[in-house]
Amino acid sequence: MGSMSSDVMLARAFLSRIAEPACVPVWALVRRLGPIGAVAAIRAGDTSDEVRSATSARLAAIEPEADLEAAERHGIRLVAPEHPEWPHFALGALERAALVRLAAHGPKHHKTDEGGAPIPPLALWVRGDAELAALGTRSVAIVGSRASTDYGNLVARELAYALASRDVPVVSGGAHGIDGSAHRGALVADGVTVVVSAAGLDRPYPPGNADLFARAAERGLVISESPPGAAPHRQRFLTRNRLIAAFGTGTVVVEAAYRSGAQNTVRHCRKIGRPVMAVPGPVTSTMSAGCHDLIRFEPSPATLVTSADDVLAVIDSSVVPSETAADVRPEAPPDVRRAALDALDPSVRRVFDGLRSRHAAQVDEIAARSGVPVVDVIRSLPLLELNGLVLARPDGYVVSPAPAPSPG
Amino acid sequence: MGSMSSDVMLARAFLSRIAEPACVPVWALVRRLGPIGAVAAIRAGDTSDEVRSATSARLAAIEPEADLEAAERHGIRLVAPEHPEWPHFALGALERAALVRLAAHGPKHHKTDEGGAPIPPLALWVRGDAELAALGTRSVAIVGSRASTDYGNLVARELAYALASRDVPVVSGGAHGIDGSAHRGALVADGVTVVVSAAGLDRPYPPGNADLFARAAERGLVISESPPGAAPHRQRFLTRNRLIAAFGTGTVVVEAAYRSGAQNTVRHCRKIGRPVMAVPGPVTSTMSAGCHDLIRFEPSPATLVTSADDVLAVIDSSVVPSETAADVRPEAPPDVRRAALDALDPSVRRVFDGLRSRHAAQVDEIAARSGVPVVDVIRSLPLLELNGLVLARPDGYVVSPAPAPSPG
Repeated sequence: MGSMSSDVMLARAFLSRIAEPACVPVWALVRRLGPIGAVAAIRAGDTSDEVRSATSARLAAIEPEADLEAAERHGIRLVAPEHPEWPHFALGALERAALVRLAAHGPKHHKTDEGGAPIPPLALWVRGDAELAALGTRSVAIVGSRASTDYGNLVARELAYALASRDVPVVSGGAHGIDGSAHRGALVADGVTVVVSAAGLDRPYPPGNADLFARAAERGLVISESPPGAAPHRQRFLTRNRLIAAFGTGTVVVEAAYRSGAQNTVRHCRKIGRPVMAVPGPVTSTMSAGCHDLIRFEPSPATLVTSADDVLAVIDSSVVPSETAADVRPEAPPDVRRAALDALDPSVRRVFDGLRSRHAAQVDEIAARSGVPVVDVIRSLPLLELNGLVLARPDGYVVSPAPAPSPG
Repeated sequence: MGSMSSDVMLARAFLSRIAEPACVPVWALVRRLGPIGAVAAIRAGDTSDEVRSATSARLAAIEPEADLEAAERHGIRLVAPEHPEWPHFALGALERAALVRLAAHGPKHHKTDEGGAPIPPLALWVRGDAELAALGTRSVAIVGSRASTDYGNLVARELAYALASRDVPVVSGGAHGIDGSAHRGALVADGVTVVVSAAGLDRPYPPGNADLFARAAERGLVISESPPGAAPHRQRFLTRNRLIAAFGTGTVVVEAAYRSGAQNTVRHCRKIGRPVMAVPGPVTSTMSAGCHDLIRFEPSPATLVTSADDVLAVIDSSVVPSETAADVRPEAPPDVRRAALDALDPSVRRVFDGLRSRHAAQVDEIAARSGVPVVDVIRSLPLLELNGLVLARPDGYVVSPAPAPSPG
């Protein structure tokens, strides 16, 4: 757990178990009070009804110390947003979507949240040493049916092999079928593969893929939002899918029937603005019908891809190049920072000008100071965060400190 | 040959042999002088250098009477634009494209004509009793590779079967591979299939498909722009493809490699505004690579289709409904005619108002009378023709005669 305060770690471990993943009221509470304050409020019962109903069932039995110890015994670590390893880049898309959602529907559950609200996780349980923080800068999620055909398995494996050979991490869900073929293809290439599990990491699911989870942890990463011991419930797969969507710079659907779990991942991609790609197949195969449907989907068709080159062309044109993103994150040198400021839309720039370096301001205050409507402030802040210009703190937003100019 | 003047028939037979198909200078000459005048000018050598160079080689040996007699012996008839059987609807798209081309490049050959200028044929040699005039109102061209796979043959056959079962004529080129599979599928459904041949109809090409040509002639049509005896030269395939594009309300590519003859048909479709569809297939098959490329083609991607329903949805949304087109053709009753007039763009309506019922006017005169620029007059006339409002005659354009109101 390194240099992190153990209070924060205990709070994050508590929060990770007290409610189900993607629980909007709890996420909003943490956003308002910070993790330690949120835990105190939950323990004291000093919260909204929604938070109380989401957390009361587990309050009596929760033991975050024991969870952290058990995890450590299994080689699992807890990574929190306060940790330098936190995948800010990948999860920035969820952060942005969450703020837009908050502006539209408030901090309660809403019917658009069915299938998983687009909000960031409160913490991640992680195994493996690959670079978690870099995910999303240039990684590809490969998803599809469990009941895949030989054709689909072949394509998933070859595609993953080709991407991993070019140092592009491959993200998937660890299931049988397309998921497993993609992970295995990346492993054959001795590349990085990332398994995002719906269950606790001490219980690989499906058990028949336990070897795959173990091998992914050696070279890549195995990640879950749920604490050790969590069972693979259906709802956890749906909320897990938003993390797959976020960890991939883009998502490729290799095979899917008309109605399939892959469609849920695709919906998450659309909510958070990640490109969706689909591999065509024989029109005589029901397992390609969902892919063909995605390619025809109006008004936002999936891009038809047939090779790793196709996939890289899509993701490389869809994002801030990873170098730039890295450069303008917290340690951005002054000239990069100036370039980032100059590139901002005028209204986003006004939001930035409404912020202070020391005094943390809430959205209302920033809106009043900048003269920009609240909803636009909410939409601008994640962009400023992503560019390393602004820091979000539990007490509000501040201008991120500019580092001293580097010598030479 | 029925009620048609035998002079016109002889002239059309002459024109069909004197130059290669899609010869722009000869087409322009016929447009200006009519078929009889054009033949007289060619025989007298009283033409442009381009016409002379396109026609001189065959002038000495040409025998249109013998051609017509030989055709009749083979059960082949000559159909000319003056004939009620002429497929005005299908060829209107070529007529329109030809006029636009004429305005842009004049009556000489131009580099854009490589692969076949988008001009109508001067006459068609036809075998079979299916309704030639109705082609293009709701028909589908199915094209693709000769080196097709089992998958492609299966899809072509099933698609053609399903379309023909619904009384949708299937148009193709009579070749091995996808063409043959499409024709056979339509024949199995006891439907109408249309073979558009690049060679003379007395020499089915490829010879191995002679049975197919014979069966297509029984239930459907076999058509060639070239007279009996013409050999299947490469250029004749390219110019033939524009007729396939025109005879289909839309064209479906079932299998095609990256570079293939199907691409030429697709280019013709784009030139004349016919929708292009493509069937996806395994990304592991080079025979589907051309289809996937078409689906991704920017800025005018082919529509991905997987079934006859998909194809019908595309063609039914792409054209003037066939009923309407039929209603407003020459015998349009007054109220339909009025509705067609009311639906015109103002500038097209001005062109119409610049026309007279008895006095045939050339484009220049219509432009002067209507105050509409020449290029817009040229673009408007085919639309007016297509709606049955205007007649094109060798001496110019006239308002088409309104039939007497029907009793009742």
